[in-house]
Amino acid sequence: METKILTEIIKLDTIKKILENFDPISIIEEGFIAYSKGKVVVPPVGEMIFDDPDNPGDCHIKYGYIKNDNFFVVKIAQGFYNNPKLGLPSTNGLNILFNQKNGSIECILLDEGYLTEVRTASAGAIAAKYMAPKNVKRIGIFGTGMQGKMQLEYLKSVVKCRKAMIWGRSEAQLKKYQEYMASSEFEIEITQDSTDITDTCNLIVTCTPSKIPLIKADQVKKGTHITAMGSDTSEKQELESKILQIADRVIVDSISQAETRGECFHALKDGNIDQAQIIELGKIITNKALQRKNDDEITIVDLTGVAVQDIQISKAVYEGFLSLKEN
Amino acid sequence: METKILTEIIKLDTIKKILENFDPISIIEEGFIAYSKGKVVVPPVGEMIFDDPDNPGDCHIKYGYIKNDNFFVVKIAQGFYNNPKLGLPSTNGLNILFNQKNGSIECILLDEGYLTEVRTASAGAIAAKYMAPKNVKRIGIFGTGMQGKMQLEYLKSVVKCRKAMIWGRSEAQLKKYQEYMASSEFEIEITQDSTDITDTCNLIVTCTPSKIPLIKADQVKKGTHITAMGSDTSEKQELESKILQIADRVIVDSISQAETRGECFHALKDGNIDQAQIIELGKIITNKALQRKNDDEITIVDLTGVAVQDIQISKAVYEGFLSLKEN
Repeated sequence: METKILTEIIKLDTIKKILENFDPISIIEEGFIAYSKGKVVVPPVGEMIFDDPDNPGDCHIKYGYIKNDNFFVVKIAQGFYNNPKLGLPSTNGLNILFNQKNGSIECILLDEGYLTEVRTASAGAIAAKYMAPKNVKRIGIFGTGMQGKMQLEYLKSVVKCRKAMIWGRSEAQLKKYQEYMASSEFEIEITQDSTDITDTCNLIVTCTPSKIPLIKADQVKKGTHITAMGSDTSEKQELESKILQIADRVIVDSISQAETRGECFHALKDGNIDQAQIIELGKIITNKALQRKNDDEITIVDLTGVAVQDIQISKAVYEGFLSLKEN
Repeated sequence: METKILTEIIKLDTIKKILENFDPISIIEEGFIAYSKGKVVVPPVGEMIFDDPDNPGDCHIKYGYIKNDNFFVVKIAQGFYNNPKLGLPSTNGLNILFNQKNGSIECILLDEGYLTEVRTASAGAIAAKYMAPKNVKRIGIFGTGMQGKMQLEYLKSVVKCRKAMIWGRSEAQLKKYQEYMASSEFEIEITQDSTDITDTCNLIVTCTPSKIPLIKADQVKKGTHITAMGSDTSEKQELESKILQIADRVIVDSISQAETRGECFHALKDGNIDQAQIIELGKIITNKALQRKNDDEITIVDLTGVAVQDIQISKAVYEGFLSLKEN
């Protein structure tokens, strides 16, 4: 007689409730450490690019497992950037958690892309925790989407500064961002001129799907930290690749992914950096000597998003779900 | 205001009901034709191999889309071959259907691996339809699992012969197979000696997860057709690779996949065939000159399973679900 294994389907509202009970940042941090120690199997990212000019999109499949763990995870994330014009969110996705011992489907997290936002915002907080200048004058955010909002939210636990300036292409979107954040602790300015950010912010986070660099090398002042997380394909690029050349430290979440996507991909292709210069975030976390040394350094953290983040956040949500169910 | 798109979750019992209303073979056939015409985007297969000696397993992610279609599909299939000892089925899986225009998740087919069995059995029927000898004396099946049963079932619509011999390692499993098929139209013999099959069957289907060839080249008689579908990794192999050398025609579902997995992978590596000899199934279907010429040829169809099969079967089930819902 065959045993039937029940697949739990967990929806966004439940996921959000479960997330209130743990700190995703520390969970993602553990994931990066394990990844950089070689304890995680992460095959190359699966990718589909849809080039319909009316609504260009992409779909990424990130998957893998921590060796000798109970689970393996497949995460699918879609981005269709003109969706808001259709009344749809621009990003979407789901996480699927499997039993590593027998392959059964333990649960499907119908998180609508939210867990990708959470694990990405967590990575931004980790980047700032170890690499931002001690004295952050103002936080600069490129991008008015959900990630632009969550980055600021997640930075609260690692940075004291509560002043921010947001860059966006659309004034309407900038105003909406400001309204959305009205009840937050942040004093928010908005701008359509990127130099307003580079002139006044020493902790900058870029989270747009731009294919044209938004920041030029000659704009970047001494002592600036930039976390670039918008580019996750070979086509997207937020920073002029020379910025990586003038940086004192270039850090990525995954060296193998940085060879084919993100800011490093462009800088490597343009000959502006050497692979040997790039350090993995998981190594930074555990080695103080690799972290920012002073408030003059220019540092870049280039994030393309690694499956270990999806593994960690999915596991934590599922475990939270199981303990909710028990009580 | 954002529109909420409802994701339909369709379970196995509903899927089986929907499958009664259409012919999967013709749908999969259309898929192979489109694939070999270059109308389908199929990125490389995602793969995880779990090498726990107690229960070795694998997980394959097959995904892609027909250009200018409404959907894209991600299929995840798991095989853990000692699961029956744990009271669990050895294969499992799910299909996810997305909207190609905006990335929303249209439906999740919780088919428990059944749709993979259906689309694989359909491919076996298509292989036999175009390549089996006109006069099939007896059908030989290697493997006593679900696929071994479904192959025979699906061959009914393309082959008149109702005599079959089944090979398996375990006598108990062979007896179970025979009992399961007792009420079928087939007269079923069982054996643990592969020469019983190669001596008396001229249409042979191999569907095991074997890593050691089950059929040697000197066993293969003139006029035999073999469909080898068990091997879908670089490690699995059911046919001695010399068999592909002595074959008059070597056909695969996907040439690009055959370079890295399945029987052709081994034969190419061993220098027993040349890439130029291999023909794609989608081309065979539409070109009579490429099909079996006489009852003396030795022909091999090596199937590793292509995402276009998953796309076609998922679409058909979802469309069937929507029309059920309307009525």
